[in-house]
Amino acid sequence: MEVNDINMQSDNCEPDRAAHPGIFLCHQAGKSDHQPAGRYVDFPVSVVLPAGGSGERTGLQTPKQFCSFLGRPLISYTIQAFERVSWIQSIMVVVAKENMDLMTDIIQRFQHRKVRVVPGDSTRHRSICNGVLALGEEEGGRSAAERPKVVIIHDAVRPFVEEDFLYKIAMAAKEQGAAGAIRPLVSTVIATTSEGYLDHSLERAKYRASEMPQGFTYDVICQAYQRCSESDFEFGTECLHLALQYCGTNAKLIEGPPTLWKVTYKRDLAAAESIIKETLSRSACIITGGSTQAATLAVALQKAVSALDMELDVIPDLMGDNARYLLKEWNFIQVSVNTSCLSEVEAMFVALEAANRALLHPLVVIWVRFSSMDELSVSGRMAEPAAIMDLASTAKLRNILLYGIQLHQSKEAERWEKSVLRVAEIASALIRDRSPALVGQLLQA
Amino acid sequence: MEVNDINMQSDNCEPDRAAHPGIFLCHQAGKSDHQPAGRYVDFPVSVVLPAGGSGERTGLQTPKQFCSFLGRPLISYTIQAFERVSWIQSIMVVVAKENMDLMTDIIQRFQHRKVRVVPGDSTRHRSICNGVLALGEEEGGRSAAERPKVVIIHDAVRPFVEEDFLYKIAMAAKEQGAAGAIRPLVSTVIATTSEGYLDHSLERAKYRASEMPQGFTYDVICQAYQRCSESDFEFGTECLHLALQYCGTNAKLIEGPPTLWKVTYKRDLAAAESIIKETLSRSACIITGGSTQAATLAVALQKAVSALDMELDVIPDLMGDNARYLLKEWNFIQVSVNTSCLSEVEAMFVALEAANRALLHPLVVIWVRFSSMDELSVSGRMAEPAAIMDLASTAKLRNILLYGIQLHQSKEAERWEKSVLRVAEIASALIRDRSPALVGQLLQA
Repeated sequence: MEVNDINMQSDNCEPDRAAHPGIFLCHQAGKSDHQPAGRYVDFPVSVVLPAGGSGERTGLQTPKQFCSFLGRPLISYTIQAFERVSWIQSIMVVVAKENMDLMTDIIQRFQHRKVRVVPGDSTRHRSICNGVLALGEEEGGRSAAERPKVVIIHDAVRPFVEEDFLYKIAMAAKEQGAAGAIRPLVSTVIATTSEGYLDHSLERAKYRASEMPQGFTYDVICQAYQRCSESDFEFGTECLHLALQYCGTNAKLIEGPPTLWKVTYKRDLAAAESIIKETLSRSACIITGGSTQAATLAVALQKAVSALDMELDVIPDLMGDNARYLLKEWNFIQVSVNTSCLSEVEAMFVALEAANRALLHPLVVIWVRFSSMDELSVSGRMAEPAAIMDLASTAKLRNILLYGIQLHQSKEAERWEKSVLRVAEIASALIRDRSPALVGQLLQA
Repeated sequence: MEVNDINMQSDNCEPDRAAHPGIFLCHQAGKSDHQPAGRYVDFPVSVVLPAGGSGERTGLQTPKQFCSFLGRPLISYTIQAFERVSWIQSIMVVVAKENMDLMTDIIQRFQHRKVRVVPGDSTRHRSICNGVLALGEEEGGRSAAERPKVVIIHDAVRPFVEEDFLYKIAMAAKEQGAAGAIRPLVSTVIATTSEGYLDHSLERAKYRASEMPQGFTYDVICQAYQRCSESDFEFGTECLHLALQYCGTNAKLIEGPPTLWKVTYKRDLAAAESIIKETLSRSACIITGGSTQAATLAVALQKAVSALDMELDVIPDLMGDNARYLLKEWNFIQVSVNTSCLSEVEAMFVALEAANRALLHPLVVIWVRFSSMDELSVSGRMAEPAAIMDLASTAKLRNILLYGIQLHQSKEAERWEKSVLRVAEIASALIRDRSPALVGQLLQA
């Protein structure tokens, strides 16, 4: 409920979540779910992703690009953002030598394709240059026709870049030779005297913050790096500046969405995690097992959950055409009526595993045990807590988070409505928090 | 467990949480818990807090300063940050006319002192000027001696400002006439042509981002506003600039901590909430009721929880000297041995309420029901779920979040250790997430 509490309605603040939930809905790395009509890029585009920080320079133990969010390093999210864009051919990740093995492991573990890893160098420009040169040398020397027309340069710590914006950058780079993302300045920029006093302040309207991604024709970025000085390599950070100075190319500047922000401070880790969790929590699929009672409950839940800013689809099972939900949803609610048997949940786990669904994000499965009043006294209530805890412990190892909610039928309308609302609230909180510590609990509605 | 998951060890990323947990440990608004030795400011200092955004300009429904975090608006956190500083005399909050009533309600509800509300105006400078003028007019015309020597200007949407930094700003302002917080630039700043192309990029090392707070002698800020032009009032935003241009005062610039950042985008709301939750989750107090069994459990929990980055103090009860924990902690764990009676929890609620402890933040109380194996078969297990749910529903209305954890004694060492670890993990997750949807649940360890 935290999001409701802080009033995160979409019209409430300048939105900076990913506009396309699709960014996380791709169940297989490298496969693009949607293709904006008429927005296909018909020339070869590759990406250079500098992720060189070894942590030594900043004294950090883990460089931010390798910090884990829901069990997956930040850089894997960034790679995924590019991989799902069908017109991007290859991604050259540049990492410090000491992190080459770690990066290779990440690529294997999360089944990334299109990716090659090259070693970085002592400065940002040298590392990017390594990546650009490696693009030209792929598979033992390419002909000019095989080389990328446009190279997009991005940061590993900006994971929420979207296809629409990459399209704009790629097109502008091809036309103008160079293009870069900008954002309005959040603070006034001031010049300081050497003694630490105010010298003057800049007129905010005339300046912008230069962000990533940036795009260049392969020729421009290669030429810029061939011609630039040792001092540029050593102290420079801005590729657009090299293109201007050494190729006479004035980059086209395009205002990007706030989601392009760079994960810089510790608070940004929390913000990134919140965006990821929110994206995973927008919808769920209720499986009724074909029961009429369960279907009635599902409809009531749909209504209750819509107030909590979540969408619910109701289906009887995951067979036939409904199997598509296995590939679409990150959250499942299985309703079982008058049974403490978890076989329906177990069957779902088999299907989810066959679809390799928990590879990129932890999946939430909520088992709603819906019992009539009569059944209550008969059934042994002690059995389920142990059974669901055991099943949840095993599932957790496979990145599936299983929780249970116990709901008793009531003939009193008011009491019943209250119970349904509580199921909705609990389910919504479990889905949003994705807390590994609470798996296997059978909560009371 | 999210924080462990994203590797938020303090040495892991540039820290930007509040360094002093004390910022939230003050149980009464206006009362300062600690006083850095030798850092007392011996001249009158007041604060102007522009919170003028009506939401109209940005099209937002709720201006960010009124967005709620754990049930309390952001601006109340900012006011609290100033109120706890003993040498700050008064806080002038400047709000849009249409929000005057809302602001007055917030001040009453959260029992803020030292605060006056004045109506804002059409622009930032006009609103700040209103606040400064109102400082001079307090209580029907003040003599020069009664006026503040230094005025600190801050933003309502920067809630994590700390006493140490305010001290630096106040002292430098008194000495130099003006002082302001700066931060290194995160992005390169570039100048754009009118057609949207790169004109040139600025050399990053020479520039800084101007942040808040800023401090001025009362005379300098008054003079600056008396002398500045209509155009400054209309289009300007930077007080340091006015002091330089109209008083010839070069402000002293002081690098502030990353916590000074301005809550600007939606992601910043998530970051702010995460910082607040983390600050509230660093420690808890276990109450054993004097039972030896409970004390043994408490020691085992202490050990298990230290790995989860939380500190636990163990006490038999909240009587006598231990009553200080009522004023210190945001989290309590009550261990009850072989009883399903919640009377110990109810007694704690009475004490917490007498101390007005849940005024500023929701308190977490976890009831650990610790039962021996023998007792299991005898006791009616059905009674507690309903009892704890009822008690939790009532407590929630008073901003206390009650959760239960059921733990069975085991003579098997391995099984026992696993159970204790689970209690620690569940308690830590409940304390960190503070989910209102899960109150009243009796979880199984």
